[in-house]
Amino acid sequence: MNEFRRDPISGRWVIISASRDARPNHFRSSVSATVDDGRETCPFCVHQMDTPAPVAQYGRSSTSNWEVCVVPNRYPVLQPTTLFSVQPDPSGIDEVASDAGFHEVVIESPRHITTVTEMTREQFLWMLVAYRDRFGAIKEAGLTQGLAIKNSGAAAGASLKHAHSQVFGLPFVPPQIELELLGSQRFYETHGTCPFCAMITAEQQVATRVVAENDAFIAWCPRASRFPFETWIAPKSHRSRFEMEDDESLGVLGDLFRLVVQRVEAHSRIDAFNYLIHSLPFDTNHHDHYHWHIEIIPRVAKAAGFEWGTGIHINTVVPAVAAEQLRTSSVE
Amino acid sequence: MNEFRRDPISGRWVIISASRDARPNHFRSSVSATVDDGRETCPFCVHQMDTPAPVAQYGRSSTSNWEVCVVPNRYPVLQPTTLFSVQPDPSGIDEVASDAGFHEVVIESPRHITTVTEMTREQFLWMLVAYRDRFGAIKEAGLTQGLAIKNSGAAAGASLKHAHSQVFGLPFVPPQIELELLGSQRFYETHGTCPFCAMITAEQQVATRVVAENDAFIAWCPRASRFPFETWIAPKSHRSRFEMEDDESLGVLGDLFRLVVQRVEAHSRIDAFNYLIHSLPFDTNHHDHYHWHIEIIPRVAKAAGFEWGTGIHINTVVPAVAAEQLRTSSVE
Repeated sequence: MNEFRRDPISGRWVIISASRDARPNHFRSSVSATVDDGRETCPFCVHQMDTPAPVAQYGRSSTSNWEVCVVPNRYPVLQPTTLFSVQPDPSGIDEVASDAGFHEVVIESPRHITTVTEMTREQFLWMLVAYRDRFGAIKEAGLTQGLAIKNSGAAAGASLKHAHSQVFGLPFVPPQIELELLGSQRFYETHGTCPFCAMITAEQQVATRVVAENDAFIAWCPRASRFPFETWIAPKSHRSRFEMEDDESLGVLGDLFRLVVQRVEAHSRIDAFNYLIHSLPFDTNHHDHYHWHIEIIPRVAKAAGFEWGTGIHINTVVPAVAAEQLRTSSVE
Repeated sequence: MNEFRRDPISGRWVIISASRDARPNHFRSSVSATVDDGRETCPFCVHQMDTPAPVAQYGRSSTSNWEVCVVPNRYPVLQPTTLFSVQPDPSGIDEVASDAGFHEVVIESPRHITTVTEMTREQFLWMLVAYRDRFGAIKEAGLTQGLAIKNSGAAAGASLKHAHSQVFGLPFVPPQIELELLGSQRFYETHGTCPFCAMITAEQQVATRVVAENDAFIAWCPRASRFPFETWIAPKSHRSRFEMEDDESLGVLGDLFRLVVQRVEAHSRIDAFNYLIHSLPFDTNHHDHYHWHIEIIPRVAKAAGFEWGTGIHINTVVPAVAAEQLRTSSVE
């Protein structure tokens, strides 16, 4: 049984989840990542699948009745069977809450591929459709926040090598999104525009930090990137809710997003990366200042004592240099 | 030239420091950490020292005129020669500030040792005295915040293996400490006591999460630890400013702190760790709610997409279990 516990100093919740310590790890056992790709014991390969029953499937091939599939996480940190309730503590130091939420895995191919580059264009689109649909299910379940993430590579916190990502439904607005909501609202009040819209317009003019763009979406390395090669993707027009994107829009997004991730995977300095999709919480209609977006976080540097102690990141690769390298990173 | 850049979405500063990308890395070059310990090209070994001139030295031996030594960082992210000034930007998206501050290295032995366990009791105490004295110099220089940190091991972001730590002086209160100040003030207003004092009293009663203690200091794994084996150390009586600790108090602290770090280094699951010292900013006298403390952060798990996307940490080792293991971790 997991639980949320609140730190009385910072006020932040953490999740204590001892059961996840027991999950299989295909990186820990192999000395060299290239020798053993975990395929023999992979629970996501369709011919030996070992997961809870799928909650959604997309596509179909000669060997499997899905090309992309969503399953509940076997080692969930949050569970849809739990009701969210905070147990207040009179002393203020022992506040806990139940582990209500969604924690699902999006399996991105029935076959044992280990990179986004190996995904087909259709699989990438189905993956985005799956994210969008699961955000809808999370909203329907009465939760507050949807989050889609990918951890790719051991340094990014992945434990299995078969290409996959994860979808979370949270019972409250998490602090990182709260920070973005408050900051963008402050910006809106001062400047009369969404800060993402202002950034996108400025980046298009400067052009040096743009990694790729098409008619509807743009990918760029933000001026104040926290991480080397950090790249954001957002719609060019002001939209707050990822779950409102239609299939056509996800197709246009998919072509750009897939290209950028392929360039990240092809870059010689990047062995591992995370990405995440940030979208407006379901419980607010106050959307003028907040723009849904994707953050891609290559794991080139390690957060160290300075970052954990201050919350200030040191980025040793100038974002314009990062963008230049990602524009020219070789993709077959 | 480094600079602070402010992210218009979150309002957070980052430091862009391309010069640090060129610093030597004794982990990157060696295939196995145990084969090459970097001693041949080590800039911190006294017989081949290659650093800016020391700003403070402590102790003396037959072969060197210091046992612990403080030097300016050769690849500083912040510089005492710079005046802190924020350049406002009318558009709100391009705010930058100059890289004013202190960034120093505390070399913890003239010889090529690579762990805290190899430090003598005296070296450990001199290291603490050096931190305290440099906090004083940072305050004298008119800066706002002192921070002492150690990165030990490649997974903790270290680049050199010779035992060392770093001291920073910051021109403003960093967000992580701001969060702790606001949270502890809120706690104080509700409960009439410093939350650290309340936690310490409760932990002593429960006892299961205490790692070690002596008359004046206690080390424990907080109930809401973000990281597996995270351990905090604090004075048992309410004190806000690390730089006010006298030599005698640092001696009592040193004995406990050194023992706990030795146990961390001896634990079979911990290859790398950070620690950091948090103390009240110099520009406030409002100290009733804030308690100086040390946070030790073993790097067993990796922050992944969920953590970066939410700011919520998933901890897979129950803090009482972590404390039990650290209490019994074998130290010679």
